[in-house]
Amino acid sequence: MSADPALRREIPDATVARLPEYLRTLSRLAEDGVPSVSSEELAAAVGVRSAQLRKDLSHLGSYGVRGVGYDVETLALEISRALGLTEDWPVAIVGMGNLGHALASYSGFVTKGFRIVALFDDDPALVGERVVDIAIRPLSELDDKHAVDPISIGVIATPAPAAQAVCDRLVGAGISSILNFAPAVLAVPEGVDVRRVDLSTELQILAFHAQRKALAAGHLGAAVLS
Amino acid sequence: MSADPALRREIPDATVARLPEYLRTLSRLAEDGVPSVSSEELAAAVGVRSAQLRKDLSHLGSYGVRGVGYDVETLALEISRALGLTEDWPVAIVGMGNLGHALASYSGFVTKGFRIVALFDDDPALVGERVVDIAIRPLSELDDKHAVDPISIGVIATPAPAAQAVCDRLVGAGISSILNFAPAVLAVPEGVDVRRVDLSTELQILAFHAQRKALAAGHLGAAVLS
Repeated sequence: MSADPALRREIPDATVARLPEYLRTLSRLAEDGVPSVSSEELAAAVGVRSAQLRKDLSHLGSYGVRGVGYDVETLALEISRALGLTEDWPVAIVGMGNLGHALASYSGFVTKGFRIVALFDDDPALVGERVVDIAIRPLSELDDKHAVDPISIGVIATPAPAAQAVCDRLVGAGISSILNFAPAVLAVPEGVDVRRVDLSTELQILAFHAQRKALAAGHLGAAVLS
Repeated sequence: MSADPALRREIPDATVARLPEYLRTLSRLAEDGVPSVSSEELAAAVGVRSAQLRKDLSHLGSYGVRGVGYDVETLALEISRALGLTEDWPVAIVGMGNLGHALASYSGFVTKGFRIVALFDDDPALVGERVVDIAIRPLSELDDKHAVDPISIGVIATPAPAAQAVCDRLVGAGISSILNFAPAVLAVPEGVDVRRVDLSTELQILAFHAQRKALAAGHLGAAVLS
């Protein structure tokens, strides 16, 4: 039996996607010494409607107290637990070019239950180099490393053409959670989760708003104005 | 008068956030030589409900043809135009450590209307180095560069403690669209758009699913099972 009923509940994917955002805002409030927050304040800080926030948090079994709101530390812990961040998640990064180096030392990565345990790259110029105190190894050593010190999540930071072969290696080693930064769509068997990070998505959303501003100000040229 | 009525329509933020995903899938279909796609197929490939997809696209004035679906190239162009990607968006990156280097050479960045025009870093060891054929300059040259060759979007790839000061410089130079990779919340005046990319968000969502899988398989320890 689970001690935590939240772990047995079904939580919609859209809610799961918003939980990291709530957690980030709560962590900031906790750092600032704020003890409690109303659903309206928290919703405004995150940029969602307060009804949406209350519904999302009800999936975790968290209900604020009328007139007081949510206890910041308690709610942060509840969300962390629901996301699995109170567990230990050993992470391996494959592809130690600039992006792999940046990810290995990204402060937001090495907190919150994630622990970088292995770095892989087949480039002989990189093998042996130490980053965040871990030596880069060739990918052929993946199985041995995974057998001794199991890896929960594999991060792919290679160029696009190498990504599928790397993914196949990770899946072959038994790693079933993969974060893909390469601009490539990966085919994986049933039961393997792949999340893709496209670094240009937010840039495109910015362009949308910039275009609206430019149109409003009459700054765009003949290409869109006739 | 605008030649394109889509540019005059109000498009909800949630729809805007999904457009890059639709565009990415359509670009892949176009590369594979697929001429048309049904709303069900496109929705499944992106991972949304087909009713949601049809509603999103109706905001652009795009309606599929019954029994045929959407023309892939036409729809891709309509979405590109709505996002503003048929315009030219000169981008500057501030902070040329590993992340800045990775972003400057990220293939998904340099396509789709985005054009890197300037790279800034105050580290004397980096100033003068050429990346993607652009010399890194100290941030003190921002105003001069912007006057000669206007920058539409500023990308902040510095460590967190430097991010607010860099943001203030960008805003002071008149740049009103900012993409922030630093794990820091930025204060900006009205009229400036900031989008934050938190590289750990997707990792947290992966952890959620990994935890569910581990629970289902009975692999998690006493910390969550009693």
